[in-house]
Amino acid sequence: MSKIKNIAVLTSGGDAPGMNAAIRAVVRTGIYYNLNVFGIRRGYDGMVSGDIISMDAKSVANIIQRGGTILKTARSDEFRTIEGRQKAYENLRKHEIDALVVIGGDGTFTGASKFIEEFDFPVMGLPGTIDNDLLGTDFTIGYDTAINTVVDAVDKIRDTAESHDRLFVIEVMGRDSGLIALRSGISTGAEAVLIPEIKVDYDAIMTRLDKTRKNKASRIIIVAEGDQEGGMVVADKIKESFPSYDVRLSILGHIQRGGSPTCMDRVLASRVGVGAVEGLIEGRRGEMVGLIHGEVKYTPFSKAIKHIDKIDDNLTRIVEILSL
Amino acid sequence: MSKIKNIAVLTSGGDAPGMNAAIRAVVRTGIYYNLNVFGIRRGYDGMVSGDIISMDAKSVANIIQRGGTILKTARSDEFRTIEGRQKAYENLRKHEIDALVVIGGDGTFTGASKFIEEFDFPVMGLPGTIDNDLLGTDFTIGYDTAINTVVDAVDKIRDTAESHDRLFVIEVMGRDSGLIALRSGISTGAEAVLIPEIKVDYDAIMTRLDKTRKNKASRIIIVAEGDQEGGMVVADKIKESFPSYDVRLSILGHIQRGGSPTCMDRVLASRVGVGAVEGLIEGRRGEMVGLIHGEVKYTPFSKAIKHIDKIDDNLTRIVEILSL
Amino acid sequence: MSKIKNIAVLTSGGDAPGMNAAIRAVVRTGIYYNLNVFGIRRGYDGMVSGDIISMDAKSVANIIQRGGTILKTARSDEFRTIEGRQKAYENLRKHEIDALVVIGGDGTFTGASKFIEEFDFPVMGLPGTIDNDLLGTDFTIGYDTAINTVVDAVDKIRDTAESHDRLFVIEVMGRDSGLIALRSGISTGAEAVLIPEIKVDYDAIMTRLDKTRKNKASRIIIVAEGDQEGGMVVADKIKESFPSYDVRLSILGHIQRGGSPTCMDRVLASRVGVGAVEGLIEGRRGEMVGLIHGEVKYTPFSKAIKHIDKIDDNLTRIVEILSL
Amino acid sequence: MSKIKNIAVLTSGGDAPGMNAAIRAVVRTGIYYNLNVFGIRRGYDGMVSGDIISMDAKSVANIIQRGGTILKTARSDEFRTIEGRQKAYENLRKHEIDALVVIGGDGTFTGASKFIEEFDFPVMGLPGTIDNDLLGTDFTIGYDTAINTVVDAVDKIRDTAESHDRLFVIEVMGRDSGLIALRSGISTGAEAVLIPEIKVDYDAIMTRLDKTRKNKASRIIIVAEGDQEGGMVVADKIKESFPSYDVRLSILGHIQRGGSPTCMDRVLASRVGVGAVEGLIEGRRGEMVGLIHGEVKYTPFSKAIKHIDKIDDNLTRIVEILSL
Repeated sequence: MSKIKNIAVLTSGGDAPGMNAAIRAVVRTGIYYNLNVFGIRRGYDGMVSGDIISMDAKSVANIIQRGGTILKTARSDEFRTIEGRQKAYENLRKHEIDALVVIGGDGTFTGASKFIEEFDFPVMGLPGTIDNDLLGTDFTIGYDTAINTVVDAVDKIRDTAESHDRLFVIEVMGRDSGLIALRSGISTGAEAVLIPEIKVDYDAIMTRLDKTRKNKASRIIIVAEGDQEGGMVVADKIKESFPSYDVRLSILGHIQRGGSPTCMDRVLASRVGVGAVEGLIEGRRGEMVGLIHGEVKYTPFSKAIKHIDKIDDNLTRIVEILSL
Repeated sequence: MSKIKNIAVLTSGGDAPGMNAAIRAVVRTGIYYNLNVFGIRRGYDGMVSGDIISMDAKSVANIIQRGGTILKTARSDEFRTIEGRQKAYENLRKHEIDALVVIGGDGTFTGASKFIEEFDFPVMGLPGTIDNDLLGTDFTIGYDTAINTVVDAVDKIRDTAESHDRLFVIEVMGRDSGLIALRSGISTGAEAVLIPEIKVDYDAIMTRLDKTRKNKASRIIIVAEGDQEGGMVVADKIKESFPSYDVRLSILGHIQRGGSPTCMDRVLASRVGVGAVEGLIEGRRGEMVGLIHGEVKYTPFSKAIKHIDKIDDNLTRIVEILSL
Repeated sequence: MSKIKNIAVLTSGGDAPGMNAAIRAVVRTGIYYNLNVFGIRRGYDGMVSGDIISMDAKSVANIIQRGGTILKTARSDEFRTIEGRQKAYENLRKHEIDALVVIGGDGTFTGASKFIEEFDFPVMGLPGTIDNDLLGTDFTIGYDTAINTVVDAVDKIRDTAESHDRLFVIEVMGRDSGLIALRSGISTGAEAVLIPEIKVDYDAIMTRLDKTRKNKASRIIIVAEGDQEGGMVVADKIKESFPSYDVRLSILGHIQRGGSPTCMDRVLASRVGVGAVEGLIEGRRGEMVGLIHGEVKYTPFSKAIKHIDKIDDNLTRIVEILSL
Repeated sequence: MSKIKNIAVLTSGGDAPGMNAAIRAVVRTGIYYNLNVFGIRRGYDGMVSGDIISMDAKSVANIIQRGGTILKTARSDEFRTIEGRQKAYENLRKHEIDALVVIGGDGTFTGASKFIEEFDFPVMGLPGTIDNDLLGTDFTIGYDTAINTVVDAVDKIRDTAESHDRLFVIEVMGRDSGLIALRSGISTGAEAVLIPEIKVDYDAIMTRLDKTRKNKASRIIIVAEGDQEGGMVVADKIKESFPSYDVRLSILGHIQRGGSPTCMDRVLASRVGVGAVEGLIEGRRGEMVGLIHGEVKYTPFSKAIKHIDKIDDNLTRIVEILSL
């Protein structure tokens, strides 16, 4: 193993709050260890096209609090081809870049794995996605912010639901995972939470809605977008079963991706950012850097991207107990 | 004119942040002037059904900061009939209520006008609606909060738009009025704002989008829901004209109604709430209490509900100048 | 009058949220009218030292939502001397700058007035200060944001005051003006508001605190920093009079200057920014651009800086009525 | 062990965001398991004086999002005496209360331990304190909210620090613990963090401030209130060493206790609230219910209150690496 002198960092996939904090951590840790650090713009696409810039400590000043990613992110069809990856490799070599840190989700790590294999190139990954669907870290960068954005939005909707005695069906992000739905549901006192991991029992929901009528005028049903049915179908079914209810649908959409990261996302991004560079210096590669129970842990990409179910039965049970 | 001893307050129509501040102001001003104050729940519906409660200073403690309305609001088909209004009148007399303050929008004031006419009953109105579509007040209660909620949401979406170089079409509230769209558009640096009051010139928009390409990677188009087309149609048209753009649609929806009121909405609600009770004591009736250029002003209901256009050409001009 | 080709913009005095929105408006309006625009860093200090940079449309992209000022601000002792102003003038001429927009408060405009007089140079001013103490505009840029920051902080303190049945004395900004104190006091249901403009009647306050004991467990007293006594003295006096009260002091301090500007501050900054450049093009100079009742108005510097009292008796009256 | 039929809940010590979510969880879980639930107002003080109210599902509706505690909290000198505790016990028996849940910190648990010992009474505890200084739980209820309030405030101060090239010393809560300081310092890119657990090395700090001058105009130094010196002394020392710096002090104070709880605090409070009631039903007593790595865990009071150091060397190291 030759000594690393120049590293690069990129963000890929959907943007997540805290990506800037992660970029900052990678850049500054690199400089701290006397490496030169480059930023690759627009993810793998910029790696293929050679959109590579030099980064210094000042270039990441005052970004820790900003949503989005200053390096931008994009999909890259070209990087899916061997020709594209070859070009990307040549661009890295042109800048004498010895190692790479990629910030993103499972797609990002899958691309990285291929690149490592083909070009024997050291790459480390940081879990940057609001979905919290990666193994090897308790939370992904952006998840805590996204879920607080959801909670804040549902609190607002609760104000209007309460004022009108309405039932709101609220669709939140989570194509494959109900984690945003479940924890935001508990946090907002939702009467029911529908998630892709668990088959919806409409009868049970309708019974509970009916049973709690005397305690509650307003109701909130949180639906993960990846749920079997989606918010619109759920809203329609409830309207059918309870024609007397004033049912409304709200799809929270893209506001869930933006915003200034929470403290937790900033600390997480900072810690794993430091961990990625220190890992590369120690000779690591092909691993995602996560935080498990407060400690930096390294997990091979192949394992990190296995969507093993993080849904805790205790959480679904709590929704039922507390939504009396 | 006999002296007023007992007054009642209700909220009607769509809820708006600051309604609680207005209720508090009416209740406490009544008590300050040694009146008994009643709260009517669920608007005119509760007046018809007799859902009337006694209010003291403590009953409105610690509500000034809360969204929604503690008195709730509802539609009332029965109040639209003479029989319903007769019942409502009898309920008021049962509690020896001499005068009424209604908080809501044009529908609320139209109902109040009929009631005054038929039963010779003193009613004063407060402008409680996020739409800012009433004459006789610079701003309506809830408008400033709603527009700041929009701005906060669009700021979040801008983070993700910037990261992906995307164009977002964002639909905001405003069935008959583009005021929320226009001011939030200026505040978020939107590249275009589409409002019901002005016919959309798609050619001009497309030309501007094209012209500013070099300066801006991301774009925001704000569309008022009452616009001729609605957000979805607008998004589709842009996709057609610019197939290379990554176009997304976001409908902000009901989050715009909730949330803790801004300072401006709280001060406005407090001032007009005091003004309503003092007006009733002075013998006023059939008027909306507004704030014009910092002073409490009384405007007859018949004039207040005339949706005279508040759109200022200067605002539309500014969108164009600043979205270079 | 020769035609203006090149203009410059600077921020001076204490920073205020919305200054960036104002800079953006000046820069883009200049470009819209085919002018070259320069930014002067660190206020008059940078004008003296020649810290002048070229601005294009992109240089002000994505700053409308940011607190502070990207051009920075500073005090300049040198600009108070004729030699300093001479240097400053020469630096402007070096860049062939024909006109200047200064964003700040009364000190900023006083400096500008001297500069205009001595060098016959066109300068226009924008009201950028959280104190709202300038004539010629309903609100100054930053005031609405600052007051909402105060309201948000006091809401938080009310949570803890309520939980402990405590009395909090909260000191807010306003060296010469009680406007922040008064409006935030109304907005947070403060039991008393102490401002520099009105001599404190401690007996009246103590009587009211005593009288309302049965309705309220917690109390909030808002004190403007420029009040005769300051928060600490007020807290001590209350402790003396009511030894049984659990009295706490909170000085909000510098958080009041920062943060993302509200919609109102962004719209205000955008409108007067456009107005300043259009005013210069029309041949105006020596005037502050304000917004009075929704319309852009020009006021001579000499008049704008007269701290004429904006305190409205109705506001002080409302504090008393509503704090039952 | 006789079967539990009636339980009570109280909050004690300093209030913390999420206490209401915890109260709600205890009340609703009790009802779910067919228990009668009572609320004791103002902590042990209300237990001594018999300020005990009946709670139903509706009494805790719509409080999950509110700061403070609806049951209020207070210090109780009387409960420190055997006579006081005897009275408290009799009040519990009067309502046939079989078991108690106390929400608070180490003082709360110490009182509970005594009460259990003397009266053989089942008590369970929930970790409700912003200080995060208890063993047996990864985080205490309120900590995540408090730290996000700090981060939000420091972000605002950074705006003004950046605009003026100032150095701010910011004092945050944490009498015995630097956890709030350390994590908020990492999150806001603070140049230095001073905490009670680590002796301050002023020379190192001064060297670092000096070394990073070229990268940074503004500086933030976070000081925990329990630090050896306190914010004011630190500010003075820096002024002495760097007379050219524009140094300001900001003491965040009581805003750190209030505000709507974050998602994490709501989920934590909900989970341990359920855990406390289920624990009592299972026959547990004298234990604090915490969440360790996502799982509900029970820890004896005697162990929970041992302030074992949670400071992680990795965190202090990260401050240094990232504040280049």
